[in-house]
Amino acid sequence: MPRSTHSKPRPLTTRGAATKLRIVEAAASLAYVTGAGRMNLDEVMEASGTSKSQLYHYFEDKDALVREVIGLQTNRVLQANAVHLDCLDSFQALRAWRDVMVAANRAGGGIGGCPIGSLANELAAQSEDARNLLVESFEAWSRIIETGLVRMKERGRIVPSADTEAISIAVLAAIQGGILLSKTARNSKPLELAFDMALAHIERHAV
Amino acid sequence: MPRSTHSKPRPLTTRGAATKLRIVEAAASLAYVTGAGRMNLDEVMEASGTSKSQLYHYFEDKDALVREVIGLQTNRVLQANAVHLDCLDSFQALRAWRDVMVAANRAGGGIGGCPIGSLANELAAQSEDARNLLVESFEAWSRIIETGLVRMKERGRIVPSADTEAISIAVLAAIQGGILLSKTARNSKPLELAFDMALAHIERHAV
Repeated sequence: MPRSTHSKPRPLTTRGAATKLRIVEAAASLAYVTGAGRMNLDEVMEASGTSKSQLYHYFEDKDALVREVIGLQTNRVLQANAVHLDCLDSFQALRAWRDVMVAANRAGGGIGGCPIGSLANELAAQSEDARNLLVESFEAWSRIIETGLVRMKERGRIVPSADTEAISIAVLAAIQGGILLSKTARNSKPLELAFDMALAHIERHAV
Repeated sequence: MPRSTHSKPRPLTTRGAATKLRIVEAAASLAYVTGAGRMNLDEVMEASGTSKSQLYHYFEDKDALVREVIGLQTNRVLQANAVHLDCLDSFQALRAWRDVMVAANRAGGGIGGCPIGSLANELAAQSEDARNLLVESFEAWSRIIETGLVRMKERGRIVPSADTEAISIAVLAAIQGGILLSKTARNSKPLELAFDMALAHIERHAV
């Protein structure tokens, strides 16, 4: 929607959305470092410069905030991956995607972990609401991979019989497991090895 | 060590070891369900039928107890895997291992998660002590896989050039990622797909 300079602005709504986003971003950072369970609402308020009444104005409770954190982190991860996967149509593009993911992991000393994977590991048994959102997050991620593989199939790079859905899920599993081992070892080598296995898995279906 | 019926027994030591183990087992179960961070020492005492003084007699603090939990869960996982991997010498044996792991996951509705993976995800950024223990856990696990692959190499099933260490790490990553996706989706299919990719990765090095 284009910004209008003459129609009556709705500053509260705009400011409200900005405040809400600031809270979710602060919560996402804290949850990423300490885990969603250890995330403390006082720290969220302090980090976002908001009051208790503001926090509870936008979020019914901590669970509601965690749901927004899942949404934010999912969007971030999907966008970061979409940049490489949206135009995926060759094995070269797949390797470029792998290189960027591994380089990002290496730049962080392997420490980071995947925000979605970490939330899923922590919350899958704790909250049905969170779990359902995280199932959607993983499905959206594997669907992005699959869309790229379908495009490769259409361009005749991989065989028509390739089960792109199954391959995408296996590739995502390799990435998740690789990131977990790398986060534990503080070394991006496991992600590298897992990602290479995943690419070789796709290449097995090359035309 | 054989039990002696006549030498002076050391009931406190034996009973002490049993009490300590009971506490660690109770803590491991609670940490598995709620996460190590949410694990409450009062609940550990209740579940193990021990007092606060007993708990603190065996464990300096919660961190010390968590370290023992990591050790216990690592032994359990390694033992469960060793049964299949200790005599691994063929692709058939690899598939049997895969079938047992997938069946166990399916029997639990995919819910369980890997106790080591869950602890690693939660604690890698929280505690250097815990992280170092978990690095050793993963290394021990991948070494069991590697030992099997080296045996397959010796028996001429896989080519001498196969990098058994790298393959083992990738296989472990696939298992970890598969279990995480399965735990989130409450469906063992992702583990199945990831494990099959891992086996195909090994088969690529078949003689």
